[in-house]
Amino acid sequence: MNLIALLTDFGLKDPYVGIMKGVITRINPQATIIDITHESRPQDVLGAALILASAYPYFPKGTVFCAVVDPGVGGKRRIIALETEGYRFIAPDNGLLTLVCKREQILKSVSVKERKYFLKKVSPTFHGRDIFAPVAAYLAKGLDLDNLGPKAERITKLSWPKPQAQADTLTGEVIYIDHFGNAISNVDGELLKSIFGDDLSSITVDLKGRLVQGISAYYAQVRPGEPIALIGSAGFLEIALRDESAEKTLGLKRGSRIILKKGQ
Amino acid sequence: MNLIALLTDFGLKDPYVGIMKGVITRINPQATIIDITHESRPQDVLGAALILASAYPYFPKGTVFCAVVDPGVGGKRRIIALETEGYRFIAPDNGLLTLVCKREQILKSVSVKERKYFLKKVSPTFHGRDIFAPVAAYLAKGLDLDNLGPKAERITKLSWPKPQAQADTLTGEVIYIDHFGNAISNVDGELLKSIFGDDLSSITVDLKGRLVQGISAYYAQVRPGEPIALIGSAGFLEIALRDESAEKTLGLKRGSRIILKKGQ
Amino acid sequence: MNLIALLTDFGLKDPYVGIMKGVITRINPQATIIDITHESRPQDVLGAALILASAYPYFPKGTVFCAVVDPGVGGKRRIIALETEGYRFIAPDNGLLTLVCKREQILKSVSVKERKYFLKKVSPTFHGRDIFAPVAAYLAKGLDLDNLGPKAERITKLSWPKPQAQADTLTGEVIYIDHFGNAISNVDGELLKSIFGDDLSSITVDLKGRLVQGISAYYAQVRPGEPIALIGSAGFLEIALRDESAEKTLGLKRGSRIILKKGQ
Repeated sequence: MNLIALLTDFGLKDPYVGIMKGVITRINPQATIIDITHESRPQDVLGAALILASAYPYFPKGTVFCAVVDPGVGGKRRIIALETEGYRFIAPDNGLLTLVCKREQILKSVSVKERKYFLKKVSPTFHGRDIFAPVAAYLAKGLDLDNLGPKAERITKLSWPKPQAQADTLTGEVIYIDHFGNAISNVDGELLKSIFGDDLSSITVDLKGRLVQGISAYYAQVRPGEPIALIGSAGFLEIALRDESAEKTLGLKRGSRIILKKGQ
Repeated sequence: MNLIALLTDFGLKDPYVGIMKGVITRINPQATIIDITHESRPQDVLGAALILASAYPYFPKGTVFCAVVDPGVGGKRRIIALETEGYRFIAPDNGLLTLVCKREQILKSVSVKERKYFLKKVSPTFHGRDIFAPVAAYLAKGLDLDNLGPKAERITKLSWPKPQAQADTLTGEVIYIDHFGNAISNVDGELLKSIFGDDLSSITVDLKGRLVQGISAYYAQVRPGEPIALIGSAGFLEIALRDESAEKTLGLKRGSRIILKKGQ
Repeated sequence: MNLIALLTDFGLKDPYVGIMKGVITRINPQATIIDITHESRPQDVLGAALILASAYPYFPKGTVFCAVVDPGVGGKRRIIALETEGYRFIAPDNGLLTLVCKREQILKSVSVKERKYFLKKVSPTFHGRDIFAPVAAYLAKGLDLDNLGPKAERITKLSWPKPQAQADTLTGEVIYIDHFGNAISNVDGELLKSIFGDDLSSITVDLKGRLVQGISAYYAQVRPGEPIALIGSAGFLEIALRDESAEKTLGLKRGSRIILKKGQ
């Protein structure tokens, strides 16, 4: 496998992503490059961590993930490379790999320092081009992590907002709004079942006073324009509006509280 | 040919499209993947049908088209796969393939049901990842449609708004606004010639009272900021403003009426 | 190398870019295609010239660049193909290759006229599909430029806004705003040093009365929300706001003046 998956907040209007791909291809002409996204919210490390976590398990074993959401570029933050059972990752050490570290056994972790694998001239503002892209290209070619630098201890982790259980109530919050305006929460479907049992139809979801009855299975179960709560494709409780945007119509945004109760 | 063309309304900010490509590559590492677009208007099946129809004839024979604009995901709508002389298509059975069915001889059509070609766990909200991507990957690898399920009868077709001819007048409507703000109508260039004859310079185009004289050949034939009517690259009458947006400046939108008359 | 890099203003919501890739792949199934961007500002030839110039040097030798920002499509403007030491380019002759011509020795330049390498039917509004894509596909396959048409004399060049030096003051202007809202100027870092010397910390940057002290090295050198001046990754003076948009917060836009003075 010679596959590199890219995740950045560089957007698509500038040449930045194309330049990274040029650099990769110059070093590793056989590489296949897949975009996870480049429209991750600018400088939003937590959002990018979530995007990466929902994507990487679906990629082939051997994939190299190159993730660059990097407000500290050029400063003292380290760049780290990790190896798990199936994958390798390179990212700034700012918490972007928090969920990967939580879910995977880390077999190797290094601080990326060996300038031999960087572009000759490293600008202080575009490490995506000058460090991340070339290192990812070499990794995908088969370079061992040990060549990149010394072992990295204490990988930076972001604290994740956790749902709060209290008596018969579970309080979560919106952590991500997707392209359709669906509001994805931090309430894991498994947690929901462990608290409320397998019959999710009797749960009431309280969205700032607006009540939604029961957890449904899919969007088309309600009429167009009606709100619905369901377990989304990444395993989290999600609030959607059929054929509309829950963000716009219900005013949900990141941090909005979602209260779950047993019964009506 | 091991080529998959993707068309969705998933947008580019979330990891959804990248995940689909990860799934495809895991099953079919040699596949080449081309994006038709992922910014098809959310849930707009008619718009997506038009985009697909304008794109597929330009792809190499053997291409597998995987089109997912799917407001009914998880519900009772079928998933269908079609085979034509040169291409294969997989899409929800909601009308997305209306124009393909109108233009091509359908050699095979099946209802996609064989779970062997799906991901093991099928979520009710992301069939793009769990069904469409893996099935497309197998099709591009050479899988025969017959393996996917039983013959599909009565493919769902959307009714297409047709231009109305009356005396010396032809009334069409805007069916698509593109990135440049050009308003593309449902008036086929061939129809225009069959009604008004080959000399299109004497036609008057009435846009809510604003008159445009003659059908031109290309944008730069008028001065910047002036409206122009021409036969666009997909063969339909199109209203544009040189160096500006016809949508913004003329207030044209989907459904706006366009009246064509002979003479001034 | 069989690599084609695409740069257009076609956007990503329509099928235009996907269609170009379909055409390329039909002619040249082994081609690798990399997107530089398709969100170049509509009809903005100067902006596209800048994007191209900042990207091409990072691509592998042998890359074919196919750049289509083409308000004059269908009219009298020529299409040109250029060959330099390492690369080949095809673009409308409207100034898009101004910076390439300024920086590279042009070994060959031809006017693209040979219809044998076009699609059979050439529409007057979508040369991207009918001319640029197929010609780029043949070039990447190894076609020599001489086959495309006669030698092209007098390539069109755009005049570039130049910074003005006067006494102890250098006046530049914003020429590009990127995805992060960073304002990139026409002041080259080398020019800056030749005028003010190597110690850039004593320069004062005057942004419509708001003063920024010194040229920094990277974004995180100031506190969030504070303005900073630095030499960006393409070598030009750039105004940024840490974790914010200089465009929105400082009101900078294309053409905004930036005045540099020695001392405080």
